[in-house]
Amino acid sequence: MANEKKLVQSITAREEDFAQWYTDVVKEAKLCDYSNVKGCLNYLPNGYAIWENIQRDLDKRFKETGVENVYLPVLIPESLLQKEKDHIEGFAPEVAWVTKGGTEDLEERFCIRPTSETLFCDHWQKVVKSYRDLPLVWNQWCSVLRWEKTTRPFLRSREFLWQEGHTLHATAEEAEARTKMMFKVYQDFVQDDLAIPLVCGKKTESEKFAGAKDTYTIEALMPDGKALQSGTSHFFGNSFPDSFEIKYLDKENKLHSAYETSWGLSTRIIGAIIMVHGDDSGLVLPPRIAPTQTMIIPIAQHKEGVLEKAKELYNRLKENGIRVKIDESDTTPGFKFAEQEMLGIPTRIEIGPKDIENNQVVVVRRDNGEKITINFDLIEKELPTILESIQKDMFTRAKLALEDHIFEANTMDEMKEIANNKIGLIKANWCGDPECEDNIKAETGGFGSRCMQEEDQKEVHGKCICCGKDAKHKVVWGKAY
Amino acid sequence: MANEKKLVQSITAREEDFAQWYTDVVKEAKLCDYSNVKGCLNYLPNGYAIWENIQRDLDKRFKETGVENVYLPVLIPESLLQKEKDHIEGFAPEVAWVTKGGTEDLEERFCIRPTSETLFCDHWQKVVKSYRDLPLVWNQWCSVLRWEKTTRPFLRSREFLWQEGHTLHATAEEAEARTKMMFKVYQDFVQDDLAIPLVCGKKTESEKFAGAKDTYTIEALMPDGKALQSGTSHFFGNSFPDSFEIKYLDKENKLHSAYETSWGLSTRIIGAIIMVHGDDSGLVLPPRIAPTQTMIIPIAQHKEGVLEKAKELYNRLKENGIRVKIDESDTTPGFKFAEQEMLGIPTRIEIGPKDIENNQVVVVRRDNGEKITINFDLIEKELPTILESIQKDMFTRAKLALEDHIFEANTMDEMKEIANNKIGLIKANWCGDPECEDNIKAETGGFGSRCMQEEDQKEVHGKCICCGKDAKHKVVWGKAY
Repeated sequence: MANEKKLVQSITAREEDFAQWYTDVVKEAKLCDYSNVKGCLNYLPNGYAIWENIQRDLDKRFKETGVENVYLPVLIPESLLQKEKDHIEGFAPEVAWVTKGGTEDLEERFCIRPTSETLFCDHWQKVVKSYRDLPLVWNQWCSVLRWEKTTRPFLRSREFLWQEGHTLHATAEEAEARTKMMFKVYQDFVQDDLAIPLVCGKKTESEKFAGAKDTYTIEALMPDGKALQSGTSHFFGNSFPDSFEIKYLDKENKLHSAYETSWGLSTRIIGAIIMVHGDDSGLVLPPRIAPTQTMIIPIAQHKEGVLEKAKELYNRLKENGIRVKIDESDTTPGFKFAEQEMLGIPTRIEIGPKDIENNQVVVVRRDNGEKITINFDLIEKELPTILESIQKDMFTRAKLALEDHIFEANTMDEMKEIANNKIGLIKANWCGDPECEDNIKAETGGFGSRCMQEEDQKEVHGKCICCGKDAKHKVVWGKAY
Repeated sequence: MANEKKLVQSITAREEDFAQWYTDVVKEAKLCDYSNVKGCLNYLPNGYAIWENIQRDLDKRFKETGVENVYLPVLIPESLLQKEKDHIEGFAPEVAWVTKGGTEDLEERFCIRPTSETLFCDHWQKVVKSYRDLPLVWNQWCSVLRWEKTTRPFLRSREFLWQEGHTLHATAEEAEARTKMMFKVYQDFVQDDLAIPLVCGKKTESEKFAGAKDTYTIEALMPDGKALQSGTSHFFGNSFPDSFEIKYLDKENKLHSAYETSWGLSTRIIGAIIMVHGDDSGLVLPPRIAPTQTMIIPIAQHKEGVLEKAKELYNRLKENGIRVKIDESDTTPGFKFAEQEMLGIPTRIEIGPKDIENNQVVVVRRDNGEKITINFDLIEKELPTILESIQKDMFTRAKLALEDHIFEANTMDEMKEIANNKIGLIKANWCGDPECEDNIKAETGGFGSRCMQEEDQKEVHGKCICCGKDAKHKVVWGKAY
């Protein structure tokens, strides 16, 4: 059992050093690693397969709302990036510049896209003429590059994979409705498919996306108490469209402004999956996006009939649409168990001579270790139910953990007290002044405004915990990744 | 009918000007357009949806052979690109260079990947230690950039979308087998799913990929007589792995070289689909990769019951997995027909008051204009059969056209005669000397070596048509895109 021990020992305990535990899981589960291109990741098969499943599920949700996919260039001319003032201020310091093509120096330099609002608007300016051309509801799956100084696997890297949706509408109302619709799509996807509970709401003025009028965010709470911004949906109003001179002729033949949205979710979310669900044995993947949903592990596989029976099981599960693998490698069952646990495969099926004798298999749940004995003939009926239970239980557990770590503060002292002694998010009233926002962050040792939940804004009573003036918003404050 | 006429008139006839016809189809079917980034395309919804279907079908074929997907960085450090001598010579003149990140000048410049052999090898050098780590059978879907001077939609652009597979093996035999396996996957995919017949074989020395030992190519013949290289599979031997010092310990604990392959297919293939199948009414898409397989067009849609019946039809077809749309727009049926034809949607279903009375619909095939009357209750059973017939007929027609345009030449005079008077490819013997290869191309006005078909190489008799020495190969010669 030396190998088995070694595999398990290679992970730091979460209690001991959470950041090191995260790094260990990413490495031992072979999700990604750093390339020799500083700050850029290699997304390896185990990590990329999770992203492929995220793409598949999320893209289906997009298309059900009428989204069409496109692909626009990786390069943006500098003059284009500069067309929207706030946008260039936000992005110019962190883009990579192409100055040479082949052997010639370029007359105008290009940046590698950090985001593509400018390219979409530039195209729309050419093609949008009439109300008949609207709405345009587009999305692209691609990578973007931002010249970050500090990087961490999935959470922050120079190049990352994402989808960026961009839409153009005839009216502000329609664009706002689309912004909120995609905000809701993200919530449903992350909660239902990734089993990650969320705190969702509008960003404050100072936390908005560069150039946006409103930004809506979904935030997940990590076990170390930090929030992870996991997806954003932006309403731009007509700022970009006007900067790019996008106008359309309405039914009365009058020129009108157009209204824009954009929304994105990135490979960062894989970091949230790792942290929210993982344990000291490694990754724990939600069944709906797990690349492998069950690993069949034959016990005493050299004994007659065991491998045959395991393969029969494999074929039956595969035919029933379950993502199944079989581990026939020449190692001990204990080693195989440890590996399946490290990879976060939601269930394993143990099948040995004794099970075959009793016409049964043992299913072991990765999330809680529960062992379930199932009649061999019923496995393809029972396993999907078990997988759905795991999905639901993972969400419920995470939801309880989140609720346990949201606190309320009525004064600055209360907030500092919580900030110093608890792990999690704090709700507190705010007047709306950016100066108070900054002060609160400074005095609490880094609790910035994460978002303003809609349900909390209906009737805001009381005073700003910083300046004591009448509060306008109840804000969720937290430290952030 | 003014609109209808306008739509049809906007395409140049193929006979009149084939290149202009191509440009017109790309534009009118809204597949892609040039962005303001010189030489780079915007892949628009109609064009990108074709690529998504290609990805889905081809990726499935890959995974059935054990391929795993990954994603490696968009940037390559210059020192890495230089590690393999032939490779850098091939690519250095046509890459874009990043020299600045954020506000700092970079110590080492990066190129935007023109292809990723170097990045894969660099990663493998770190992780491959033992025979147990092999084989590695990886692929990535991404874009690459090559600083081309002349560009044409899909056929040649600075940035294009592709997949690049990279594999590493313990033995040369295994790597060669994988090279040929992927060569076969491409042939099957392009012929079966895209209905494009191919001429396939090995490239000559001078036409190989930079750094490869063998290159296998699939070539399609366009109606203007030019060949389009549509996919390639390369065997590298141990040249790259040795340059990158990738060595593994075999079962006897001895250090061994590793062997590499790579293989790619790009959005260029969309150009082949357009040219091979298109006609003077626009695009004709093979049903298996058509984003929409049938368009329901209601006739006299304002009459009672017509739209209801059309929608019933839509729902039934959708439930049966057919990619269906319904055109309820406020234009004439004639206009809708012209548009469906321009977009290359394989079938349309006409349903009007008379059809409803007779409990029938009329299916019109895009490929040959045939009208088929079908009992309304049987449509979801009959339509898949019609779509499969279209798929097969499109391939058969294209295959006959290809066979009609492959000629044989026994002397240089014969070859020149054919080159001057016919459209297509020419088979002729060659001694293997690159000088003769160049001469043949020069004397025939551009007929370069496309490939050497395996079935033609078994017994090569006769003389090189250029120098008269004993022939070693029978080569397919042609002009190329």
